Amino acid sequence: MTPTSQDLRVAVVGAGMMGADHVARITSTISGARVVAVVDPDTARATAAAATAPGAVTAADFEEALAATEIDAVIIATPGFLHEAVLMPALERGLAILCEKPLTTDEAASLRVLEAEQKLDRPHIQVGFMRRFDQGYQDLRALVASGDNGALLALHCAHRNATTPPSYSEEMLILDSVIHEIDAVPFIAGEPIVAVEVKKPRRNSLAPDGLRDPQFVLLETASGTLAVVEINVNIQFGYQVTTDAVFESGVASIGRETGLQLTSAGRAGVAVPPSFKERFGAAYDTQVQRWVDAAHRGTIDGPSAWDGYLASVVATAGVEAQKSGRRVEVDYAMAKPAFYDLDARADAVPSEA
Amino acid sequence: MTPTSQDLRVAVVGAGMMGADHVARITSTISGARVVAVVDPDTARATAAAATAPGAVTAADFEEALAATEIDAVIIATPGFLHEAVLMPALERGLAILCEKPLTTDEAASLRVLEAEQKLDRPHIQVGFMRRFDQGYQDLRALVASGDNGALLALHCAHRNATTPPSYSEEMLILDSVIHEIDAVPFIAGEPIVAVEVKKPRRNSLAPDGLRDPQFVLLETASGTLAVVEINVNIQFGYQVTTDAVFESGVASIGRETGLQLTSAGRAGVAVPPSFKERFGAAYDTQVQRWVDAAHRGTIDGPSAWDGYLASVVATAGVEAQKSGRRVEVDYAMAKPAFYDLDARADAVPSEA
Amino acid sequence: MTPTSQDLRVAVVGAGMMGADHVARITSTISGARVVAVVDPDTARATAAAATAPGAVTAADFEEALAATEIDAVIIATPGFLHEAVLMPALERGLAILCEKPLTTDEAASLRVLEAEQKLDRPHIQVGFMRRFDQGYQDLRALVASGDNGALLALHCAHRNATTPPSYSEEMLILDSVIHEIDAVPFIAGEPIVAVEVKKPRRNSLAPDGLRDPQFVLLETASGTLAVVEINVNIQFGYQVTTDAVFESGVASIGRETGLQLTSAGRAGVAVPPSFKERFGAAYDTQVQRWVDAAHRGTIDGPSAWDGYLASVVATAGVEAQKSGRRVEVDYAMAKPAFYDLDARADAVPSEA
Amino acid sequence: MTPTSQDLRVAVVGAGMMGADHVARITSTISGARVVAVVDPDTARATAAAATAPGAVTAADFEEALAATEIDAVIIATPGFLHEAVLMPALERGLAILCEKPLTTDEAASLRVLEAEQKLDRPHIQVGFMRRFDQGYQDLRALVASGDNGALLALHCAHRNATTPPSYSEEMLILDSVIHEIDAVPFIAGEPIVAVEVKKPRRNSLAPDGLRDPQFVLLETASGTLAVVEINVNIQFGYQVTTDAVFESGVASIGRETGLQLTSAGRAGVAVPPSFKERFGAAYDTQVQRWVDAAHRGTIDGPSAWDGYLASVVATAGVEAQKSGRRVEVDYAMAKPAFYDLDARADAVPSEA
Repeated sequence: MTPTSQDLRVAVVGAGMMGADHVARITSTISGARVVAVVDPDTARATAAAATAPGAVTAADFEEALAATEIDAVIIATPGFLHEAVLMPALERGLAILCEKPLTTDEAASLRVLEAEQKLDRPHIQVGFMRRFDQGYQDLRALVASGDNGALLALHCAHRNATTPPSYSEEMLILDSVIHEIDAVPFIAGEPIVAVEVKKPRRNSLAPDGLRDPQFVLLETASGTLAVVEINVNIQFGYQVTTDAVFESGVASIGRETGLQLTSAGRAGVAVPPSFKERFGAAYDTQVQRWVDAAHRGTIDGPSAWDGYLASVVATAGVEAQKSGRRVEVDYAMAKPAFYDLDARADAVPSEA
Repeated sequence: MTPTSQDLRVAVVGAGMMGADHVARITSTISGARVVAVVDPDTARATAAAATAPGAVTAADFEEALAATEIDAVIIATPGFLHEAVLMPALERGLAILCEKPLTTDEAASLRVLEAEQKLDRPHIQVGFMRRFDQGYQDLRALVASGDNGALLALHCAHRNATTPPSYSEEMLILDSVIHEIDAVPFIAGEPIVAVEVKKPRRNSLAPDGLRDPQFVLLETASGTLAVVEINVNIQFGYQVTTDAVFESGVASIGRETGLQLTSAGRAGVAVPPSFKERFGAAYDTQVQRWVDAAHRGTIDGPSAWDGYLASVVATAGVEAQKSGRRVEVDYAMAKPAFYDLDARADAVPSEA
Repeated sequence: MTPTSQDLRVAVVGAGMMGADHVARITSTISGARVVAVVDPDTARATAAAATAPGAVTAADFEEALAATEIDAVIIATPGFLHEAVLMPALERGLAILCEKPLTTDEAASLRVLEAEQKLDRPHIQVGFMRRFDQGYQDLRALVASGDNGALLALHCAHRNATTPPSYSEEMLILDSVIHEIDAVPFIAGEPIVAVEVKKPRRNSLAPDGLRDPQFVLLETASGTLAVVEINVNIQFGYQVTTDAVFESGVASIGRETGLQLTSAGRAGVAVPPSFKERFGAAYDTQVQRWVDAAHRGTIDGPSAWDGYLASVVATAGVEAQKSGRRVEVDYAMAKPAFYDLDARADAVPSEA
Repeated sequence: MTPTSQDLRVAVVGAGMMGADHVARITSTISGARVVAVVDPDTARATAAAATAPGAVTAADFEEALAATEIDAVIIATPGFLHEAVLMPALERGLAILCEKPLTTDEAASLRVLEAEQKLDRPHIQVGFMRRFDQGYQDLRALVASGDNGALLALHCAHRNATTPPSYSEEMLILDSVIHEIDAVPFIAGEPIVAVEVKKPRRNSLAPDGLRDPQFVLLETASGTLAVVEINVNIQFGYQVTTDAVFESGVASIGRETGLQLTSAGRAGVAVPPSFKERFGAAYDTQVQRWVDAAHRGTIDGPSAWDGYLASVVATAGVEAQKSGRRVEVDYAMAKPAFYDLDARADAVPSEA
């Protein structure tokens, strides 16, 4: 890595919960980068987030930030439908980009972004599928790749949140929540998803009115590995994400609760984390540090825009499956461009499919 | 219970692995019963099994045993297609009957057995779904009934065997293996299964040639609880049966390995039982002891012939689902006869549905 | 085993909690035995316990029972200071004897019992150290014997009870509670205890007034294995007995809580058993069944009077260590008589030292 | 924190395993600091370590480094007997100091360091007891402070290493290994150690010739809490550090293995980390980041030189106890100077005693 006199100058676009977190992370935890601009149309929010980053300017939009200060890189943490409007000028300037999921909210926009990026010399966009940086997911992927327990036959995934706000819609079960498994399953299995089906068990009466929660999403990969994903976002007790991988001669599990074991009042056990921040905090840190390190080398080190595109195609099929009750085959519009063959470059968290 | 001077005189029909186990169990472990006859057309096998039961006679068929000695009760451990031929004369004599699953191998035979039994004053047949006597299943059922964590929404079941013999067919995945979950799911949920669907993930290359293993069997109950059953009978590492129950505000799990925890050679863990005998040995003991105790009272204390009938109807639908790839609704030919309303009699392991 | 027409006719002496449990166990769970007499000076208590055993007589003392009915065997469940008065006439009559711990409450009485027993052809007394019949203890002992992880170097034992009655005295920490570890450590280690020392950490303010609880009892075996026993009898949360065995190249642990794993309200865990009955219930059943089976063969199958004597010698040294604060070497008054070399007879739970 | 244009300029003294780790950590993981000098008399080692830190100079001794470049802070990772020679000039220059344990190797040297430091306006030395930054230790300390389970009565600590080099001496069991528990026990208990005793169980034949390993070190705190520390440095299977804390109404445990749970080949379990680097890697990162952050504020945020002094006094008593076989009371030569009352300043990992 380069010395800090050449710290990566980062603009964070979007100063909501995720954006403010990234500002604090870059400032307090990440080596080799500093926040130089915080962008949000809500000035108070931008100012609050920037307060943790000495020397950072605030701006109402990205163009204003670009005019105000020197920027090497951008973290996009706005709502998904606003991503394209930041991705395009960032690509034009050749900035390093870390874009929170989803890449964009429709396939056409994703294709426009892919096209724009391919005019550059190499990929500049890394997509924020942070689970790839969780030790457990990396261990599972390595176990599949090792072949030590034979081929991967099936995955049981559980994705549980304590509660959802009233605005959370049925589509968001796929687009906002299962989207993580949609990226993680190919990451673990080493091959793309080819079909999706949705099953709806008995509804949780504690879910907001009108939300059909939980649901089971069945993802099939190219070789037939079946991932059964329980998406369950009003389980009340906390946040829990587990994966059990079934091999030909073994089973491997990640995500069970750990930490201080307390025996008291007739029970012995551990605490369940309240939210994704505690569960995946270290993965976020690792993701951003590796993105910063890669940016210094002029590359990315994690899921690319191509991975973001693949996930959005599967998610679209998933919403169709959710509505129709039928098994929906995934139809990728294009083959993977050679431009996105990063495996020779990225050392440990390669792009998929 | 009655004193041992009035020990239940038991004939065990079928002296294969299960039958021989029952002979040894009655003789060495069970209070209030003794084996007086061991029946098997294979004389050597009958003699070997009877050797552990002092005073027991051997016979080539059930009639011969009935002629040779006084018999109060019979345990049927022959292959399923031979059950009816023992059930009928046993019912005629009003014997106490413990019949290994399945009750019979087709629905018509089951209906004949139900009809014959209803000519008696009360149920005489208990079916050997021993999981109902496992502490974990009883705890799960009690947790559902308590409502402490809200309604039961879904179940994840894994049923894994080390290996199968070459003769094990695809239908047996349902008829011999998932049959346990087909009984256990209504036992836990407190309501019947109404539909079945089968999904087939990537095949385990270590399974015998031609066997499509593992499979996922989706069982839906009347209120919409969805049980996803992984049946996986060539996993190599041992025997493992786990159930994770998803409630509105909690998750409960049974069946994880326990026992001596050993840390050595870079790993910390516990042994996996090699077979169902170690995993469910205590449940078999409890099942038989409670059946013996109930026989002394002239009743049964566990799943009845009606439960055996229900399981066979669901299993038939399961095989159809397995063949067709479609979701198959379960069509019960008849409503539960009042004759089988045992709940007021049986204290802790009531019949279902 | 012999057929039930020759059931072992058992007198249970002492109809308190332990005695009443044994009456119910013999009647409902144990094969090959029945209770023919319940003895207690408290007639109401004797009658209540006998009510679960059809055909059993009650008696105010053991002689009265012997006069009233034919008796093959006796279970002694009175307070310890009354044991000798039952052991002596039982030995004279050559009965099979299962004597709850301790054998007697002083060494002189133990020696008298040993002397009387040796006039018989072989040992008739089995002492109720039921932990030897717990699967975990048997697994640990087997692991030591296997040498798989090298020699046993140390043991960490924790013995925790929820609460004690006001009458529970400091000596009882050793004589009533640690007495189990005093038997179990040689059982696991395969060699006798040679020294005892007691350390007293900060007192639990929740213990009854005047009771110095918890305490740490250090037991050294002949080859230098050090067992650190935490005796802690007012821990409030339930009953917990754990052992961690430290080998030259491994660590093995038993006794951690198992059972239904519940995730709810921010925690994931299992229940702690409230008392020794839940924790060691299966061990009690196994102990009594094996004693009955051995009695039919005219022998014992578990710890002998010699083991009871050894434990009482160590316990006496332990009380001295507790009072003096010093390390006390154990002085066994005699070498093991050949009479007690049972290893060739008892197949799986041999006597120690 | 201040912006990176004012990164803390750190010299790392000692380029062995620990020093080289710190160079890499500062360069790749830590925000707000960079390595400007690597000091080691072994030029090749210094150069190798410096290679990961762009722009860092190398030097044969600390004075040479001070002459060659601007230095704000120093990490001392030399053998302990060389610490004083770096601490003194670093204090004279008012540098921020992170000193690996032990502070010094004898009490007289420690007192000289304390005296020199107290001439400054406030503490400049933080001692590298990194376990205080491990989440488990922080959770345990918080649980004690909360009083939720009553007072802390006892601690069971196990400290196990795979193997030791031939040069590892019996004293090092205390001075190099138990020194961590000597700091951690007061950190958890919230009060100082007042007495030490050592027990020596059977020797591990796999330990290097002449090393009496394992040993049990008994540490008593001011209120009587008894910590039983198993130090066991040739256990072969990997690195394992566990603590079980016994409260008046509960037990809390940290340090059991976590991570990917694999069921295969008849066993279910997790990997044991091979060394302290995997087990405490995150604690090292947190320690250094918080030290850097505190240095920017002109203070420390972790154990002070006073804590280092306390630990060395207890360790000296421990070695005496080890040699004599007696209980040795700890005699602190001085009361805590007000200078070291950091609690009002340091927010989460306060100094002890």
